[in-house]
Amino acid sequence: MNDKATGLELNHESRLQIEDHQSIRLWLRLLTCTNMIEQRLRGRLREEFATTLPRFDFMAQLDRAPDGLTMGELSQRMMVSGGNVSGIANQLAGEGLIDRSPVPDNRRTLCVTLTDKGRSRFADMAAAHERWVVEMLGDLSQAEHQQIMMHLTKLKRGVAALES
Amino acid sequence: MNDKATGLELNHESRLQIEDHQSIRLWLRLLTCTNMIEQRLRGRLREEFATTLPRFDFMAQLDRAPDGLTMGELSQRMMVSGGNVSGIANQLAGEGLIDRSPVPDNRRTLCVTLTDKGRSRFADMAAAHERWVVEMLGDLSQAEHQQIMMHLTKLKRGVAALES
Repeated sequence: MNDKATGLELNHESRLQIEDHQSIRLWLRLLTCTNMIEQRLRGRLREEFATTLPRFDFMAQLDRAPDGLTMGELSQRMMVSGGNVSGIANQLAGEGLIDRSPVPDNRRTLCVTLTDKGRSRFADMAAAHERWVVEMLGDLSQAEHQQIMMHLTKLKRGVAALES
Repeated sequence: MNDKATGLELNHESRLQIEDHQSIRLWLRLLTCTNMIEQRLRGRLREEFATTLPRFDFMAQLDRAPDGLTMGELSQRMMVSGGNVSGIANQLAGEGLIDRSPVPDNRRTLCVTLTDKGRSRFADMAAAHERWVVEMLGDLSQAEHQQIMMHLTKLKRGVAALES
């Protein structure tokens, strides 16, 4: 096996066979692009903020919900695999980045909010995250951005329609 | 929170803010589409073949390498997160789907190949997998397929160029 010569191709697309259907080629390309971007974001978050993508995702969900979210709502919203929501909440609470308080009408449920420190920390991470994403996707023109968004919208609707 | 009303939006895109950069919107759309497709494939593999995506991915890599792959090569090629390559190899060997034999010039290294049973099982799974992917991506026209592939190629090159 000459791994070095194939370089980039040592990923999901390495399972491609010539005769594969074009939909399979497209799916594997989509998966490869997503994994490449996600791995780079994971690396940057670790190096520059000593944090993980699930923790970032958890704080991002709270940042856009100023009234807070229950643990159940957080679990539903988080799609990063391997994100153990209770474990993440314990860590972030330990670092003073989130508050957990009982919901008034259901004291068995905890409502989670960002603390001021958490909100400020998240703002720093979100700004860096946006820079990294722009850096990775910046080669695409405005028109290409719009075209690919349009196609992905159609794709998303098609997949969602199959769920029912 | 009215989760039911928002439906589809309870995913990565739920962390979108109006002012977010278009690259962030595109990245979250890409992530959402990939996750939706991956979850559906995971579900189908589980329901119809009682198997997992990492196991499918492992067998797919072997299917296109008739001379076999070392465990190191398999680890490199597998990008599905959570795929414990040794654990998967033990399971598949236990079910008679793969063979592991020492490499002649390096007896500490194992070379993994599909057995005839493994190859036949994989062929069934791959045919079903292709049907599912075509079903999900089939709403896109030939021209749209080509356009999105072209854009993702550009995107992939741009991200890969940043790695160096």
